Amino acid sequence: MQIDVIGTIGEARSDAFIQRTVIVIDVLRATSTMITALDEGIRGIIPVETVLQAKELQKPGDILGGERMCRKIPGFDYGNSPLEYKNEAIRGKRLIMTTTNGTRGFHKAERAEFVLAGALLNGKSCALAAAEIKRDIVIICAGTQDVFALEDGLCAGQIVDALVLLLGEANASLNDLATAMRSTFLQLQANIPDVLLRCSNGKRLSKLGFRGDVEYCAQLNMTETVPLWRYGMMTSYRK
Amino acid sequence: MQIDVIGTIGEARSDAFIQRTVIVIDVLRATSTMITALDEGIRGIIPVETVLQAKELQKPGDILGGERMCRKIPGFDYGNSPLEYKNEAIRGKRLIMTTTNGTRGFHKAERAEFVLAGALLNGKSCALAAAEIKRDIVIICAGTQDVFALEDGLCAGQIVDALVLLLGEANASLNDLATAMRSTFLQLQANIPDVLLRCSNGKRLSKLGFRGDVEYCAQLNMTETVPLWRYGMMTSYRK
Repeated sequence: MQIDVIGTIGEARSDAFIQRTVIVIDVLRATSTMITALDEGIRGIIPVETVLQAKELQKPGDILGGERMCRKIPGFDYGNSPLEYKNEAIRGKRLIMTTTNGTRGFHKAERAEFVLAGALLNGKSCALAAAEIKRDIVIICAGTQDVFALEDGLCAGQIVDALVLLLGEANASLNDLATAMRSTFLQLQANIPDVLLRCSNGKRLSKLGFRGDVEYCAQLNMTETVPLWRYGMMTSYRK
Repeated sequence: MQIDVIGTIGEARSDAFIQRTVIVIDVLRATSTMITALDEGIRGIIPVETVLQAKELQKPGDILGGERMCRKIPGFDYGNSPLEYKNEAIRGKRLIMTTTNGTRGFHKAERAEFVLAGALLNGKSCALAAAEIKRDIVIICAGTQDVFALEDGLCAGQIVDALVLLLGEANASLNDLATAMRSTFLQLQANIPDVLLRCSNGKRLSKLGFRGDVEYCAQLNMTETVPLWRYGMMTSYRK
């Protein structure tokens, strides 16, 4: 099985995803939030690229969530903080969500056969789902405005490492960035919360008052929930 | 001191280099070849982007070197194999050189105050030179056709690690990719020759008969020679 890691959304060419499983990673915070919302019992998530699209899609009972410049969007119900979604009020509802980088990654991946959402919270389960699907895998680090983000690279490495263990070294063919990210993860895994607080997005979010989000998103393999995006809606891969 | 690593030439924005020291890395094989040629006593190297430019610049006594598709260019004296330049015949001569990615990196960096050439062969000395110059540092991994190349990332990590040791943790501010590449280097440093033979460019070069080049370029800190590109010509930083 071929396992490729791509460092930013800008580098991803959507025609390379046909017949593949794509895993989109935006640890701080879009994919961590999606995983948390599904864990908490949301019915489904619709990732959209613009605020206008989100408002146009909203039907009675739907929740609007997301951020611009890390902050909640005016008129929206929730921001992009995973901790806000640990909340019984969202159960059974549909979430329409737009964020700066993460939701862009999903739309870039729409030609893939399967699109999963990965974060440190679900890395091992995400690898297990992708291995079960048995397609070549492309892991997209969302990054920030086309610049590599360490937390996304770490999560890519966590998933690559889990895949290599699941498939065996001989059955996993890694591109160069996949090898590098796996090594980065192995080197730093004992110290993930500290690394996240000191990386670029971790520092920015902490300054804005979201240190609790960074600490929450730094937890490894806290859930088996893997968001699967098909037919425009995101639900759990395993129901 | 700010230390940024950029994963491919395509991501490098030349206006970000003003008043900085740029280190260009193309381990397989352009910068390893430049270092070797200077070590062997070449008078200076002129990196150019096209075959035509190389031919137009050639004066009597000058050597033409470089590659397209990893092979020597028709009519040129040498290819891009560092081992070819371990050769007394080049002493005192001027080398005009064009390669697919490496020489492009130097032209992208031309607005920087200082431009150095780094490879695994001279990583520690390259870090020492950059620390002495006392400007913020941008390390450009040449990569291959705008795709990340592991050997360049490893060398970036080698240089970042040496810089952190020279400057002290508190005086070195790393961007996210610099932290990742440092971790990758620390994780893989005991095994560099194997890693290079198994990465994408290492496999390609070995298939084409250049396995000896890959093994040669995998040696850490074999020389103190640091190529410095100023006024269109590359000479040793320390004479």
